[in-house]
Amino acid sequence: MTAPGLGLGLDIGGTNFRIATFAADGLVPLHVHKEEVGEARDPASIVERIAAAAERLVGGTDDVTMGVGIAAMLRDRQGTVARSPHLRWRDVAFGRQLAARLGTRYSIGVYNDVNAIVWGETVAGAARGCRDVLGVYVGTGIGGGVVADGQLVEGASNCAGEIGHTKVRWDDDAAPCACGQRGCIEAYLGGSYVAKRIAAELAAGAKSSAVGIAGSIDEVMASHVDQAAAEGDEWALELWSELAPLLGVVLANAAAVLNPERLVLGGGMLSRTPLLYDLVVTALTVAAPVAIMETLDVVPAELGDEAGLVGAAALARDGVSLVKEL
Amino acid sequence: MTAPGLGLGLDIGGTNFRIATFAADGLVPLHVHKEEVGEARDPASIVERIAAAAERLVGGTDDVTMGVGIAAMLRDRQGTVARSPHLRWRDVAFGRQLAARLGTRYSIGVYNDVNAIVWGETVAGAARGCRDVLGVYVGTGIGGGVVADGQLVEGASNCAGEIGHTKVRWDDDAAPCACGQRGCIEAYLGGSYVAKRIAAELAAGAKSSAVGIAGSIDEVMASHVDQAAAEGDEWALELWSELAPLLGVVLANAAAVLNPERLVLGGGMLSRTPLLYDLVVTALTVAAPVAIMETLDVVPAELGDEAGLVGAAALARDGVSLVKEL
Repeated sequence: MTAPGLGLGLDIGGTNFRIATFAADGLVPLHVHKEEVGEARDPASIVERIAAAAERLVGGTDDVTMGVGIAAMLRDRQGTVARSPHLRWRDVAFGRQLAARLGTRYSIGVYNDVNAIVWGETVAGAARGCRDVLGVYVGTGIGGGVVADGQLVEGASNCAGEIGHTKVRWDDDAAPCACGQRGCIEAYLGGSYVAKRIAAELAAGAKSSAVGIAGSIDEVMASHVDQAAAEGDEWALELWSELAPLLGVVLANAAAVLNPERLVLGGGMLSRTPLLYDLVVTALTVAAPVAIMETLDVVPAELGDEAGLVGAAALARDGVSLVKEL
Repeated sequence: MTAPGLGLGLDIGGTNFRIATFAADGLVPLHVHKEEVGEARDPASIVERIAAAAERLVGGTDDVTMGVGIAAMLRDRQGTVARSPHLRWRDVAFGRQLAARLGTRYSIGVYNDVNAIVWGETVAGAARGCRDVLGVYVGTGIGGGVVADGQLVEGASNCAGEIGHTKVRWDDDAAPCACGQRGCIEAYLGGSYVAKRIAAELAAGAKSSAVGIAGSIDEVMASHVDQAAAEGDEWALELWSELAPLLGVVLANAAAVLNPERLVLGGGMLSRTPLLYDLVVTALTVAAPVAIMETLDVVPAELGDEAGLVGAAALARDGVSLVKEL
């Protein structure tokens, strides 16, 4: 008698990697293991640590499907990482290296982390039962994922969903983005950019009750600005009023092209800035075509950190873009 | 012995409707019939004329699949027209009326006209063999269609592809669009808006060699402006330099979300303005994420007027969103 099949879901970020076990047909993690990525970030070290963690969890199971969500821009459906600033990788045949290390007991799929998160919310979270979904996550950066007619949209080179690098300004003063271009929505609303903007404006003398809320000028975060704005602070309101329409328009424009039934908004930044969230949704409602808004529900993400684990495991189980033997 | 199945493709626009016959497995029209829509545009009259034309072409064939592309915003997958400015329709159960009139010999699908055009280019034209396609048509207005992993993206209410109503400006001076909103790309690059802009600027005293090219100030069209710009006319170059980046950014932003392998550009306006086309592609190249451009080919549409007939017939034959009996 062979052991029943087992599912693994992984989420590899810049700080931690997490790995969860799932029953063959389950969408709830049975067990989650977390490790710090640490300093040894070369591909061979990461592959070895992932493989060792997987083997410990899997034991003697013969038939394992393993889905990996990774904070990276992919290049194909073989898990090739074009670029991962977090891991400091460029052009790494990650999927194939992982498959070679783990052997034929494993069926492995590698996905963009936000794509996996959006798929997790679609199969088990805020967009359960929906066939057309747009998910946008505003954390340190901004990422997205698209589901069309019940299928994850991966695109020609597995790069679909790069909504963070859609442009909201294209004049000479457009903000520089870490991607090397200018005017990306991420360079305005990404958490790291908002934090820098807040620090710079306060250092330059802006007066705000956010300083008192935070305790000191060095501790002011987006959540404090949000609270200050909600309490009527002029500077905070002005900043949010400038930024919110940019993201609202980006969401409206993507919705006009995709006609999703549900827009899932998540990420560490938006979840801590309820007023900004509301202002973004208002701007979206103004900017999106009426017919598109009629059938669109905007909802916050539900699954939190688990979404990526669930989504990656579910994609691999469904056989989406599994790494092929060469 | 029953007759072999036959395919019909229809394209219902504001001026003409066209209907083509196809062999059961063919992608080349066997015969195309064209009629003016004329003045009697009420749904019952149009349904009757379409049905009569179809019956003449079909004869005694038992098994007919009929795909209809219509210049309308749809509301569902039953061919309900939410709004068609061209036909002056609102909330018309067009698909069901057509199905009721034609009876059970016919399997009928109703599609947005540009969606059908993009599908036509995908199965038989400029994006043949591609699984991820974005098609954008700049004619009087601007429409689009999306193919993801080999499937037409229809969206939650069959409104996907409304790229003409994505916003490129959201300040108080954003241009008003016939859709009732402001700042839509259509309100800047749609042929009817460009024509009005040209006429207004020339009437206000702008000097341009386009007037000489056209023959008189009243006859200046976008194609003349394009020729003037290509010959160095300052006003024409300035106008094109203002407008081209707007469409380039819209295309880049949609490409960032969709990661298509091919972008098909078509429509009456772009096909007559080769310099504007090139400027748009340049702006797209600057604005799109590098990884997205690496795998993207930009190509002009190939099939012209036939694309919509081919696409609608092919969608219906594939069983996409056929109108169901109630």
